[in-house]
Amino acid sequence: MSSSIPGFRAVIPAGGAGTRLWPLSRAGHPKFLHDLTGSGRTLLQQTVDRLVPLTGAGGVMVVTGERHVDAVRAQVPEVAAADVLAEPSPRDSMAAIGLAAAVLVHRHGDVVLGSFAADHVIDGADAFEGAVREGVAAARAGYVVTIGIAATEPSTAFGYVRSGALLGIEGGPGVRLAAGFTEKPDAESAAEYLATGEYRWNAGMFLVRAEVLLDHLATQLPTLHDGLRAIAAAWDTPDRAAVLADRWPSLPKIAIDHAIAEPVAAAGGVAVVPGDFSWDDVGDFASLAALLPGTAEGARILGPATLASLVDSARALVIPAAGRQVAVLGIPDVVVVDTPDALLVTTLAHAQQVKTVVDRLRADGRVELL
Amino acid sequence: MSSSIPGFRAVIPAGGAGTRLWPLSRAGHPKFLHDLTGSGRTLLQQTVDRLVPLTGAGGVMVVTGERHVDAVRAQVPEVAAADVLAEPSPRDSMAAIGLAAAVLVHRHGDVVLGSFAADHVIDGADAFEGAVREGVAAARAGYVVTIGIAATEPSTAFGYVRSGALLGIEGGPGVRLAAGFTEKPDAESAAEYLATGEYRWNAGMFLVRAEVLLDHLATQLPTLHDGLRAIAAAWDTPDRAAVLADRWPSLPKIAIDHAIAEPVAAAGGVAVVPGDFSWDDVGDFASLAALLPGTAEGARILGPATLASLVDSARALVIPAAGRQVAVLGIPDVVVVDTPDALLVTTLAHAQQVKTVVDRLRADGRVELL
Repeated sequence: MSSSIPGFRAVIPAGGAGTRLWPLSRAGHPKFLHDLTGSGRTLLQQTVDRLVPLTGAGGVMVVTGERHVDAVRAQVPEVAAADVLAEPSPRDSMAAIGLAAAVLVHRHGDVVLGSFAADHVIDGADAFEGAVREGVAAARAGYVVTIGIAATEPSTAFGYVRSGALLGIEGGPGVRLAAGFTEKPDAESAAEYLATGEYRWNAGMFLVRAEVLLDHLATQLPTLHDGLRAIAAAWDTPDRAAVLADRWPSLPKIAIDHAIAEPVAAAGGVAVVPGDFSWDDVGDFASLAALLPGTAEGARILGPATLASLVDSARALVIPAAGRQVAVLGIPDVVVVDTPDALLVTTLAHAQQVKTVVDRLRADGRVELL
Repeated sequence: MSSSIPGFRAVIPAGGAGTRLWPLSRAGHPKFLHDLTGSGRTLLQQTVDRLVPLTGAGGVMVVTGERHVDAVRAQVPEVAAADVLAEPSPRDSMAAIGLAAAVLVHRHGDVVLGSFAADHVIDGADAFEGAVREGVAAARAGYVVTIGIAATEPSTAFGYVRSGALLGIEGGPGVRLAAGFTEKPDAESAAEYLATGEYRWNAGMFLVRAEVLLDHLATQLPTLHDGLRAIAAAWDTPDRAAVLADRWPSLPKIAIDHAIAEPVAAAGGVAVVPGDFSWDDVGDFASLAALLPGTAEGARILGPATLASLVDSARALVIPAAGRQVAVLGIPDVVVVDTPDALLVTTLAHAQQVKTVVDRLRADGRVELL
């Protein structure tokens, strides 16, 4: 389990502000640029670290917003400058991944591409590699392949993919037909899903032959397909800027799940590979707290532990990111996120509602803090 | 009610770290140097503002630690440099007030002095002035006089003074004999005190003729008396430093309540003047919150209101003293004190326990934060 996979290319869409992780994550310095696990590597770096052994050197491409290109290049110098694609504006995941697919086809022909978000946390390198290898086999057979994560709880924060019959693909013994996708369910439905044993979390990791993806796109969203093909043809030429300026702003804004995964699954064209590694999208501070090791008192501290002085505050999450001393007295489950220009104080139970604070600041015109 | 009182001098002992107001109040920048009411004047300045009309210009003396002398002089330039007495080390309130009394006698003869802490908040100038005028009359008659504050609730945070018979003093129609002092009571006793109508809060405001005070001191604590007399005799001479170095370190460390008020009251020498103004010693953040005006949502903000973004956090107390944005989500009664090098997050209910955080920091060797 260590050689790279011939003809396999990884695409990392690096977008999304991570609003629920404010004030750590900002529009100008989003989640994927942060080390959220205390490993010394940012989420983007960890994503690249995980993929380079599978693609081989030069096999990873990053698609990100223009304002983040410099930060991305600085963080992952092993990705060639030409493989960091800059989007002039955010057009959602289908445009980002489709652009990468079209550029890859233009440069390298019909590769198998795997798309992996820049801001997820994965633990279990061998299981991840095994799932990717099976997924590549299924992609070669023509499927759009999603990795279905073994659900460890009836989460209402994730979408689910339902597994159907085994497909009997060579090199992909665990690959099954995807019987369908569901959006984030309510608690009751989530519990039912888990009980059936057929549902797995849809982590948004897709593997597919680039030409298969573009063909589906041509069928489902011809405007988007044509725009991306035109942009890709111009990408490595002096016309790139002009074509981008002409075509990009009018590309349909749509997620790959809605654009491809759901309609193609309905037609029997999607496969699911079991991913039996631990995975989290670090969607909020409660999810972040669960990823961090606890102190002897059960607190979670992302940063120097000496900067947190906690008294009677069990399960506190403290992020002392401003170098200042943070003292908490008598607030169990508190969340304190201390940055140089903004401070958030809340509780784990309110983690999903942090966006309301960001909305309040935006309404108050404090955009410099967002 | 506006002319100054002949022969009356005010002494302001400006000591005490205000540990329960950490990290706003620090050893190097204690409570009295802060504007805790948002008035634009610090507690020390408000204390001087309140007293100068009663003493006349030049009638206020401040006794403080050596390290605070510069800050005191900068904050209250109307107090002459010679009237800011620097203590080489803290020896508690009896040494501070006794030193002022001895220096005043040496300079001016037998004045009436009134001692008022530098870090209390008073509302009701006319009632305060009336009480002081009655107190001065009783002091002239030879009593040690304390101002007893009308208790508005059965507080367990304050000591009490019990009133006895009216003394019939000219110019002091409300002055009664002090039947005794009590330490901070438990809740049951406090309720009983309030029910009798005889008990008032002992706010530590004393009025007494300087010679009477020194005579009591000579009786109760002759060593302290002799040391202070010797220091006072040298104060305005080149020998001050030498005598201070020789005598000050060995002076008994004792509060004026224990040194004078209690034993003299037992002998019938203490009078109590009713003080029907509002008073608070701002002992902790809950007490501070109660002094501040509430926002429309019932929050209390000491500092620029635009720096506090509060969602579902009723009765929050926020002190944005570092210029940073403070966002709180979903923690009613929260207390957030944000300073440039340290942050405290707690609740109003834990206000009295802030000292445990300070103790923890001291144990961890973080003395630079105290």
